[in-house]
Amino acid sequence: MRYDIRFSGSGGQGIITAGILLAQAAAIKGGKNAVQSQSYGPEARGGASKAEVIISDDEINYPKIVSPDIVISLTQEAYNKYTVDLKDDAVVIVDAAMVHEYDNIKHKVYNVPVITAVSEELGSSVSANIAILGTVNEICSIVKHEWLLDVIINNFPAKSSENNRKAYNIGIELAKKALGE
Amino acid sequence: MRYDIRFSGSGGQGIITAGILLAQAAAIKGGKNAVQSQSYGPEARGGASKAEVIISDDEINYPKIVSPDIVISLTQEAYNKYTVDLKDDAVVIVDAAMVHEYDNIKHKVYNVPVITAVSEELGSSVSANIAILGTVNEICSIVKHEWLLDVIINNFPAKSSENNRKAYNIGIELAKKALGE
Repeated sequence: MRYDIRFSGSGGQGIITAGILLAQAAAIKGGKNAVQSQSYGPEARGGASKAEVIISDDEINYPKIVSPDIVISLTQEAYNKYTVDLKDDAVVIVDAAMVHEYDNIKHKVYNVPVITAVSEELGSSVSANIAILGTVNEICSIVKHEWLLDVIINNFPAKSSENNRKAYNIGIELAKKALGE
Repeated sequence: MRYDIRFSGSGGQGIITAGILLAQAAAIKGGKNAVQSQSYGPEARGGASKAEVIISDDEINYPKIVSPDIVISLTQEAYNKYTVDLKDDAVVIVDAAMVHEYDNIKHKVYNVPVITAVSEELGSSVSANIAILGTVNEICSIVKHEWLLDVIINNFPAKSSENNRKAYNIGIELAKKALGE
């Protein structure tokens, strides 16, 4: 089993953190191999950025994603830039408030109002990156929710635990709705 | 020009953050190509971890470090584990309080009391990862100090700016002493 996962969005949306947390959950809790990376080229000056995670039962020899299985896009610009090289059966998760134009004929696209829901329910969108972890993990079943939530809680100060737990669960609930459950 | 830089230590020392900040400074401010990554294998359960940065004027085709030019080790275990594959002319920077046994015949080792100095001067070792950026950048001249400090300041809440600026400068001063300036 192997997952090539790309988080994309703009600076300040916490996509690198999301990637690191997912990689740690898979490796530390799940005993998998994982590589988390970000590449910066001249395009790093622009608005869209990505963070990638590869999770595998086998050793990961080439640590760069060639074509992702799962792409999360939190802005339109990121969607446009980072969904051009997908596998045919790739899953794409886009934020409903930020991404309006997407191709859901070629790929399965889940359009999920993560940022709006987190802002409304928690008073700020700052933990939308935690919610998106709940969403992607519910849709794609990458690791046990419990493992990922443990890693999230352990990586932030105790005062953030309750907020992060709520954000993660908001993400799961939105995924269930998107899956039609 | 290319730098292969490995930060190593234990969880909670902020080495991934240090790697990300350095990569961003090189790419966003310096217009270089940069890749920042961490690999987690079954050994991720252990105490020592690493975060790697490659900075290059050219495109980076293979984004994994084969043998590093610069290694920073903030624990003895990390030193033992992550300095086995160095280039002959590699530079090694170790924290003086944490790393006591090292080989400074084969490689140039700078033994710098970063964690102690930050703890004493700032009341906590939490920004030792920022200080170590000042140290490695002063010793190895990777990017302009101004660029790296800008990226550091922009990546944390405003209330941390003064503390981070002090930590970075502590790191520079320690490096100057280590260089015999």
